[in-house]
Amino acid sequence: MSATRYARLSLGTPKLRSARLFSSSASIMSSFRTEKDTFGDLQVPSDRYWGAQTQRSLQNFDIGGPTERLPPPLIKAFGVLKKAASIVNVSYGMDAKVGEAIQQAADEVISGKLIDHFPLVVFQTGSGTQSNMNVNEVISNRAIEILGGELGSKKPVHPNDHVNMSQSSNDTFPTAMHVAAVTEITNSLIPALVELRDALEAKAKAFEPIIKIGRTHLQDATPLTLGQEFSGYVQQVSNGIDRIQATLPRLSLLAQGGTAVGTGLNTKKGFDVKVAAEISKITGLDFKTAPNKFEALAAHDALVEAHGALNVVACSLMKIANDIRFLGSGPRCGLGELSLPENEPGSSIMPGKVNPTQCEAITMVAAQVMGNQVAVSVAGSNGHFELNVFKPVMIKNVLQSIRLLADGSRSFTKNCVVGIEANEKRIHTLLHESLMLATILNKHLGYDNVAKCAKKAHKEGKTLKEATIELGFLTSEEFDEKVRPELMLYPDPEN
Amino acid sequence: MSATRYARLSLGTPKLRSARLFSSSASIMSSFRTEKDTFGDLQVPSDRYWGAQTQRSLQNFDIGGPTERLPPPLIKAFGVLKKAASIVNVSYGMDAKVGEAIQQAADEVISGKLIDHFPLVVFQTGSGTQSNMNVNEVISNRAIEILGGELGSKKPVHPNDHVNMSQSSNDTFPTAMHVAAVTEITNSLIPALVELRDALEAKAKAFEPIIKIGRTHLQDATPLTLGQEFSGYVQQVSNGIDRIQATLPRLSLLAQGGTAVGTGLNTKKGFDVKVAAEISKITGLDFKTAPNKFEALAAHDALVEAHGALNVVACSLMKIANDIRFLGSGPRCGLGELSLPENEPGSSIMPGKVNPTQCEAITMVAAQVMGNQVAVSVAGSNGHFELNVFKPVMIKNVLQSIRLLADGSRSFTKNCVVGIEANEKRIHTLLHESLMLATILNKHLGYDNVAKCAKKAHKEGKTLKEATIELGFLTSEEFDEKVRPELMLYPDPEN
Amino acid sequence: MSATRYARLSLGTPKLRSARLFSSSASIMSSFRTEKDTFGDLQVPSDRYWGAQTQRSLQNFDIGGPTERLPPPLIKAFGVLKKAASIVNVSYGMDAKVGEAIQQAADEVISGKLIDHFPLVVFQTGSGTQSNMNVNEVISNRAIEILGGELGSKKPVHPNDHVNMSQSSNDTFPTAMHVAAVTEITNSLIPALVELRDALEAKAKAFEPIIKIGRTHLQDATPLTLGQEFSGYVQQVSNGIDRIQATLPRLSLLAQGGTAVGTGLNTKKGFDVKVAAEISKITGLDFKTAPNKFEALAAHDALVEAHGALNVVACSLMKIANDIRFLGSGPRCGLGELSLPENEPGSSIMPGKVNPTQCEAITMVAAQVMGNQVAVSVAGSNGHFELNVFKPVMIKNVLQSIRLLADGSRSFTKNCVVGIEANEKRIHTLLHESLMLATILNKHLGYDNVAKCAKKAHKEGKTLKEATIELGFLTSEEFDEKVRPELMLYPDPEN
Amino acid sequence: MSATRYARLSLGTPKLRSARLFSSSASIMSSFRTEKDTFGDLQVPSDRYWGAQTQRSLQNFDIGGPTERLPPPLIKAFGVLKKAASIVNVSYGMDAKVGEAIQQAADEVISGKLIDHFPLVVFQTGSGTQSNMNVNEVISNRAIEILGGELGSKKPVHPNDHVNMSQSSNDTFPTAMHVAAVTEITNSLIPALVELRDALEAKAKAFEPIIKIGRTHLQDATPLTLGQEFSGYVQQVSNGIDRIQATLPRLSLLAQGGTAVGTGLNTKKGFDVKVAAEISKITGLDFKTAPNKFEALAAHDALVEAHGALNVVACSLMKIANDIRFLGSGPRCGLGELSLPENEPGSSIMPGKVNPTQCEAITMVAAQVMGNQVAVSVAGSNGHFELNVFKPVMIKNVLQSIRLLADGSRSFTKNCVVGIEANEKRIHTLLHESLMLATILNKHLGYDNVAKCAKKAHKEGKTLKEATIELGFLTSEEFDEKVRPELMLYPDPEN
Repeated sequence: MSATRYARLSLGTPKLRSARLFSSSASIMSSFRTEKDTFGDLQVPSDRYWGAQTQRSLQNFDIGGPTERLPPPLIKAFGVLKKAASIVNVSYGMDAKVGEAIQQAADEVISGKLIDHFPLVVFQTGSGTQSNMNVNEVISNRAIEILGGELGSKKPVHPNDHVNMSQSSNDTFPTAMHVAAVTEITNSLIPALVELRDALEAKAKAFEPIIKIGRTHLQDATPLTLGQEFSGYVQQVSNGIDRIQATLPRLSLLAQGGTAVGTGLNTKKGFDVKVAAEISKITGLDFKTAPNKFEALAAHDALVEAHGALNVVACSLMKIANDIRFLGSGPRCGLGELSLPENEPGSSIMPGKVNPTQCEAITMVAAQVMGNQVAVSVAGSNGHFELNVFKPVMIKNVLQSIRLLADGSRSFTKNCVVGIEANEKRIHTLLHESLMLATILNKHLGYDNVAKCAKKAHKEGKTLKEATIELGFLTSEEFDEKVRPELMLYPDPEN
Repeated sequence: MSATRYARLSLGTPKLRSARLFSSSASIMSSFRTEKDTFGDLQVPSDRYWGAQTQRSLQNFDIGGPTERLPPPLIKAFGVLKKAASIVNVSYGMDAKVGEAIQQAADEVISGKLIDHFPLVVFQTGSGTQSNMNVNEVISNRAIEILGGELGSKKPVHPNDHVNMSQSSNDTFPTAMHVAAVTEITNSLIPALVELRDALEAKAKAFEPIIKIGRTHLQDATPLTLGQEFSGYVQQVSNGIDRIQATLPRLSLLAQGGTAVGTGLNTKKGFDVKVAAEISKITGLDFKTAPNKFEALAAHDALVEAHGALNVVACSLMKIANDIRFLGSGPRCGLGELSLPENEPGSSIMPGKVNPTQCEAITMVAAQVMGNQVAVSVAGSNGHFELNVFKPVMIKNVLQSIRLLADGSRSFTKNCVVGIEANEKRIHTLLHESLMLATILNKHLGYDNVAKCAKKAHKEGKTLKEATIELGFLTSEEFDEKVRPELMLYPDPEN
Repeated sequence: MSATRYARLSLGTPKLRSARLFSSSASIMSSFRTEKDTFGDLQVPSDRYWGAQTQRSLQNFDIGGPTERLPPPLIKAFGVLKKAASIVNVSYGMDAKVGEAIQQAADEVISGKLIDHFPLVVFQTGSGTQSNMNVNEVISNRAIEILGGELGSKKPVHPNDHVNMSQSSNDTFPTAMHVAAVTEITNSLIPALVELRDALEAKAKAFEPIIKIGRTHLQDATPLTLGQEFSGYVQQVSNGIDRIQATLPRLSLLAQGGTAVGTGLNTKKGFDVKVAAEISKITGLDFKTAPNKFEALAAHDALVEAHGALNVVACSLMKIANDIRFLGSGPRCGLGELSLPENEPGSSIMPGKVNPTQCEAITMVAAQVMGNQVAVSVAGSNGHFELNVFKPVMIKNVLQSIRLLADGSRSFTKNCVVGIEANEKRIHTLLHESLMLATILNKHLGYDNVAKCAKKAHKEGKTLKEATIELGFLTSEEFDEKVRPELMLYPDPEN
Repeated sequence: MSATRYARLSLGTPKLRSARLFSSSASIMSSFRTEKDTFGDLQVPSDRYWGAQTQRSLQNFDIGGPTERLPPPLIKAFGVLKKAASIVNVSYGMDAKVGEAIQQAADEVISGKLIDHFPLVVFQTGSGTQSNMNVNEVISNRAIEILGGELGSKKPVHPNDHVNMSQSSNDTFPTAMHVAAVTEITNSLIPALVELRDALEAKAKAFEPIIKIGRTHLQDATPLTLGQEFSGYVQQVSNGIDRIQATLPRLSLLAQGGTAVGTGLNTKKGFDVKVAAEISKITGLDFKTAPNKFEALAAHDALVEAHGALNVVACSLMKIANDIRFLGSGPRCGLGELSLPENEPGSSIMPGKVNPTQCEAITMVAAQVMGNQVAVSVAGSNGHFELNVFKPVMIKNVLQSIRLLADGSRSFTKNCVVGIEANEKRIHTLLHESLMLATILNKHLGYDNVAKCAKKAHKEGKTLKEATIELGFLTSEEFDEKVRPELMLYPDPEN
């Protein structure tokens, strides 16, 4: 492959392809080394650690460009796995020096500093073999470098014989998928949702005394407090956290040790358990070996399940963000009960026009996650025999959903929720214009008379109080004494 | 509404509408009684217990016909709820005689014998108010009948004041949704999945000694046993059961007691807890009152979550059924490793042509459930303020998915899985034609020599054995001694 | 199969199964006749025309019950097809007397009066073979009856040899799918959408003079007329009609003539073209034979495509109905710009509480259709080799979506759109409270001064006019002369 | 914002964030200039043309990182639009010198060379206002530079007053969406599908003489030619092209001229028509102004519709790729009728193991597109009032689907389809092992005798010929003369 070809592979849409992403290394790129695999020799950029199989994938899968690369958390998880496998392999007799070099290189993969050496896209072989080989090649070459060898020589650290020892793409890729998903959920998404829940809860407490009109079917209904309304959102997010965690027991099971078809051929008894233990140690998270490796290679139901929980969180956030932007609609011609933070100019001419942009971003996240749910399900349902070969697209969508929900929640919390203010005057006005307060008069005047008051008020555009007084049922003082929304917020005492 | 109009409402597509469904009661239908609500009088068929609000819904929502009616398990759950509420209401002071009549009528709703009195379709008001009133009207009229009163008189049992006492559509409908979903999952779906898992497990055991070729990427791979292959299916179904059960903690929480907007206005302190306890007693299942009623009315995330688990089961069944029909493909020109039961003529001329029809039915179920997942998610994400008004379409889809998965699994188990037989001869032939067995020779001949054998065999269309002997690496006896698939089924011993 | 078993098959969920649907014929049901197929003898209810293969499917596919039966429009389309095929077969030499009896029986199928003789559910064999045989058996037995023969004798009209002559399930089922879909779209859905579009257009015209606040991001924006706002809905529905019609060129192509695998084996040259012509004649619609029968059997992309258009209509209706219910929200605490018809009591105590129930029904329809889109796509993507075997679930979803959109649109038009009224006073008030009108002052006072006015008004809760006068920029008269929303509704004249 | 902050914004997942993407310009990044908007001053990297509003969006929407940026084709379309608008604005009187500078800068945007100046992500404001301002700011600063002015001075080319003249984000963003989608469909996707169709057609022709077993329900069926089988794929792709083109009439309508809410306020009569004409001239494609601008801003049904066609293509490709990989399965234990090109090592030990990796990539593309369909639909259904605010996520998904289908099709064509070879010997063997050929003997021996032959063959594992001869029905010669698959490929002649 020529340098021109190489540059072309790295970029955006066909029309816009240019040397942009690697332009800084243009001078280096003119330099190549030879790498080989069983299909023959290939030229590889000399400043990259990858080998022939990675290069071949770059050439054969020119689909989607750099934005479709497998996401960094998966590469990082591969680093974790290769380190763990190396530690276990040394315990089974692999040369300790080789092992240490592999572990050092794997640590660099984990740190993210080798990320530019992982150029492969999602739309490659469905087993992710090429990405497993990409990891093997990068770690092998980097370990060779550490040990003073020559890149591409495969000595003294061979990508297959050492880095991939006792492993197969068919068990490493699913293992990395689970490690990446559990890690991102635990370290990124759950904390982001906890932040959001806490921010909503703080608002729920602050808004506890504010009584407002309730709305069902979008129509005026009996009152509740603004704090009660927000407490529903708190519960949704809180449940969302529980939901995601309820899927972890199955997402934390690792395929490692199944090798090619699940039998464990070419690995050692106990390898699976030890690798899971080592991965747990490295990540600080609780992983276990899968009880059935055939299922763990052939199906990725655990990812479909986990995404199902992400999908619920998306639905919750859609509801919450919709409510908040509708309650904040206005400033003059909407509901106007809430003021949302002004983060940027809404319009060059219209002060006071706050666009609920954070709500818009998070609802777009929700739409994306709801779509990803289908991509993951279709992919998960289409495995055959001993191997599901939709692995890369599944983990891409799962990790994208996790990241978007996490980033989106953090942004929504910080740039919107914490700054929400209640427009108490407006809330008060609307509450007392409502005809729904009539409900409480039933026990004093009887249903029929109350109906007369409400109908008169509705028909003549008057307040309920005016209508009730005009009809002679109550005096102004009596009305004020009896029609008190604060009595409508809880069940009646038991007797 | 005239009788003609009434008949028209009960039927299929516009062009096919006829008196078919109620034709047996044509003579009775000419008889009507007057029922009333706050909008005025309406004629109702005299052989039906429903009242004015039900009748009005029938007229205003002529959408989809009888097949779109709310499903029986929801109606049954409403019966359970009304009975429980009546028991609690009596404990709070409602007339015991009225209570007993309500409970007797509710029992009849539970039994299913009043199902023809619930004609309303899914596509009505999004709160399901009209169906709650349908239940109230039917139970009230039936209770009136029990107590010797006049249908439509609302005395001595009023649909609102007695049957709906301390309740609102806004809390009853979500309560009935959860009761119906948990009940159907527990009593129908889980047992069906257990049956399927057990049947697959029996096959896994029976097939344990049968060694076969593995397939990854649809291509020949290293061997495994047919029992191991089936054990993956067992694990998938077993996990599916766990997944569904992991959603029950939230699905078992009941909205009852929230009334109109979640505050519990017009109910008594403790009513919520007592109703949940009573419902648990009636159903024998463990329900609890929801900790936050605002969330329980405004969002139905628990249904989205539960359907997410159903969606995973659908994906699992798609995979399993696909494998089974591909393994059973043939009889001469497919893989032919399995024989599936012949249940019906596949073709009038072709004996031996077994169509894997049960696999086809269950994969169609899977496609439907995967679609329902989106319907439920879209509906769940679109609630506003104090009430989600996509309730009927959500529960319709959830209950349809439960039923199809349950019925489909039972049918698949009984009419397919239990009768699957292994074609051992064919399996044996394929296994020994495979070039993959070469893998085991690496340690004896070295990678390069083995590669020569395999390449020769592939190029010349010979068996691996022939090629190996022809190349002079091994004698026939040596080959047979070393190349034994039974050594390729497990990890190597630890040292 | 015993009578008990038979009754059980006809009903709802397992727990609720009773003799309800066929209860009127309970006495007849105790009577059976023997039918046979290549698998042997079976007992069939003597008052049903179906034969052994239908009965066998009933027993083997106890999935979902009567609500999952294949929809009437498909059965009707099968009637059309069998009539057309018979006419063509007679032209090729089939006994004319047999042909006439078949055509008479087929006419009865078309009329819908034999609908109770088609009990098979969607979740059967994925080719729909059993339903094709159901049609063959019913028409054959009815034709036998017409000709004075004995039911079940297959003489003188054989289900396979005569009714199915020159046909295979593999080409009849897709033909019936297309005929049903095109017919329902043309005769039911398009007219319903035209009605809706016309009703919206009438409103757009009636509302033309009413100037109102515009809303973007849910926030106050520059004004438009209510007529302009409704014109957007008209355009959406109008485009929806075009979209659906743009899919008909491919949906109107018929598979008939491909027989078993697409080759046309066992049919005559020209049969395909003649049958398509005959079907066009019977239906009055323009069908053509598919140019490639292999595609027409193996893939149902045309259904996926057509449903894609239905999905767009669903999205449009979701948007329109959401707008209408938000604009009608209130009566006191919402936007309150529209009044929707009151069709039923919203609450027993709250006059004036109109719930936008028709909007709720149609948005639930939209959610269902959006889900069906995925079911159809998953099913459509999973065909293999010469036959897609997800046919029944595909057509079920397509026909359900068509019917729900058609019925839903009609209901929405009649019970909501035609009765919508503008609350002009409220609209006027909101418009003049808006700060957005400031935009027009830019050219008179300059951006900075206008910004001062708007900011002051926003901060102090005053009208724009008050703020402008207080700041001394304009007099009351000047303000009224310059700030006229009616100047903000169109582009400026060209010069 | 500090340089640290800036670097942080530009990167991957939180854990992996580093200076990687902009590391080459680290030294430049320490230099900033001040830009301002109505919210105040902001520091912007001095080597970037963007201004304050872009910078503010970067800070407020830290969601997803660089891979979530709005795609290049949209930025390019914005360049086209700004150029066209400038030309029309000059014709209406804008300073020609300013116009020319804008047009020159816009050309640079179109060329792609300014792509690094467009850093904003999808998950921003739902109107895309921030991206419209990004374009305005970049073009304005670049035009200022061209005219020798000072970056950030807004003189002599103001981002709002000149670059955005007569425009609003609300009409520019939808215009750019349609221009981008139509351009990518026309210039990239359609040609890629044409290539694929042509490659399949070449195979269909080459494979015309090869008779093979047909498969329905995955089971052996009557024969067809391999060419006929491939002709079905040709038809699917060919229809797919027609389907996509059938959506262009609505996708080619442009919102430009609607400005803020669709009224065209602040633009000139005729501006809309002229801009559409100018865009057509620049792109060489046929765009028209939308007949109703209210619809064009408030709904994006045309994108939902277009994606519906992409979804069908995805389903088609899933079917085709599945067939090809199943037909190519083996080499010894699968169907083995096709040989697919070997592009990379399938396994280090197993020569002859070709993994159908291109099929895997394209089916993963299909799964992604099927998911995107739901994201687009959910987003499209959730517009409110005068503006749909899910614009960025909609166009992101549409453009991703277009690109993946285009790139994927090209890769599949080049790396798989053109190299497919038929294994004629294997095909021949399977065909003649089939019992289905018996069909043709019906007319010679009668159904019952043929059934005996087929049953005997099936039961005893013999060929049909052996069984027929053994039963004494035919001699070997007679059998060979009569049982000829080549007679089973077409309808019988008309008489």
